[in-house]
Amino acid sequence: MKLYHYVLNSAGHRVRIALALKGLAFESVLVDLRAGRDQQKAPDYLAINPQGLIPALAVGGHILTQSMAIIEYLDEAHPTPPLLPSDPIGRAQVRAFAQAIACDMHPLNNTGVLAYLTEGMGVDSTKRAQWYAHTIAKGFSSLEILAQRSAHGTFALGDTPSLADVLLVPQWGNARRYKCDVAPYPRLAAIVAACEALPAFRDAAPEAQPGFAEIMAGR
Amino acid sequence: MKLYHYVLNSAGHRVRIALALKGLAFESVLVDLRAGRDQQKAPDYLAINPQGLIPALAVGGHILTQSMAIIEYLDEAHPTPPLLPSDPIGRAQVRAFAQAIACDMHPLNNTGVLAYLTEGMGVDSTKRAQWYAHTIAKGFSSLEILAQRSAHGTFALGDTPSLADVLLVPQWGNARRYKCDVAPYPRLAAIVAACEALPAFRDAAPEAQPGFAEIMAGR
Repeated sequence: MKLYHYVLNSAGHRVRIALALKGLAFESVLVDLRAGRDQQKAPDYLAINPQGLIPALAVGGHILTQSMAIIEYLDEAHPTPPLLPSDPIGRAQVRAFAQAIACDMHPLNNTGVLAYLTEGMGVDSTKRAQWYAHTIAKGFSSLEILAQRSAHGTFALGDTPSLADVLLVPQWGNARRYKCDVAPYPRLAAIVAACEALPAFRDAAPEAQPGFAEIMAGR
Repeated sequence: MKLYHYVLNSAGHRVRIALALKGLAFESVLVDLRAGRDQQKAPDYLAINPQGLIPALAVGGHILTQSMAIIEYLDEAHPTPPLLPSDPIGRAQVRAFAQAIACDMHPLNNTGVLAYLTEGMGVDSTKRAQWYAHTIAKGFSSLEILAQRSAHGTFALGDTPSLADVLLVPQWGNARRYKCDVAPYPRLAAIVAACEALPAFRDAAPEAQPGFAEIMAGR
């Protein structure tokens, strides 16, 4: 398998976590999203993914896109350890938690949308930071309620890491990197701490990827 | 089953299509999203879904949220007709098509985000319409490429309606309602036409819901 991803991109980070939890090796192709590089918009990458988004996973002559679809594929093709419960209601609850991040938080704060807010909408940097923080606060405050309701395990929705945790950790990392206030979400913080104690989450973290220090120094 | 939805909300529209394709009856609870009503923010609804979003599905004492999670639940609990192919690669491709809409189009154009663009960001109505059209064009142009690549059936990714079609039709309806140019997407238009020829899609459409004419008259 070949993973197209980037050090700081949280959708790619999700797939790295899933691969690590399942102990699957992969060839790494970094697609540099930094302004001025924009490798995700290069014709050779658009031929791989017409959306111009990462991650993409090349497997058996196919290209898979969209991080949650990739992770569900990995969970079906490599079922151990499972990232979803076995009962349909439990699976729906884990997917809903994950989708609250993948649909209602991350898309509003991704690099392309933030750039369009500035360049297309004329929103200044102060208001853009407010937009970012608003999305984080709106999302995490409802996830904190869901996670407290289901506080029956070490992780977001149980005693083993699931798709919910795989989505939470990268989004939490983004919030910290953008200096958003995460103090109001103690249950989410505890879940993230439990995840970060596991080698799979540590190995998949942006900080563990090649070039991390150089990229952060250039921001 | 009890579905919390609204006439014009496209995430609820997705679930209505899935229920209709599977021939499942449900009790309908309309949650009025119109400005000034805002029933999705009322305490009794927030107790059901802390995200303050629709749809939600009450089933067997559980509340399920997030439209794609609900539809995957319906597909697991009521497998006929299936909304996903049986092979993992095919399932990933259908899910990716659906998620390109659910993650990269709809969240940017939903009611709450549009309101925040105006009220929080000070974006005027002309620029807001540009934002809407930009999201539609960016999303549909890449989906048109994907759908042309996989033009091996009547529907988005095959000869029977799948999760991809269930997501496409409501998003297409939004684009038309907001008078976005959909002429550049002939393959998507043909897929939508094939869907709209089916009673399940017609019965689930906003136009077929009670109160549609009154709601449109008030816009």
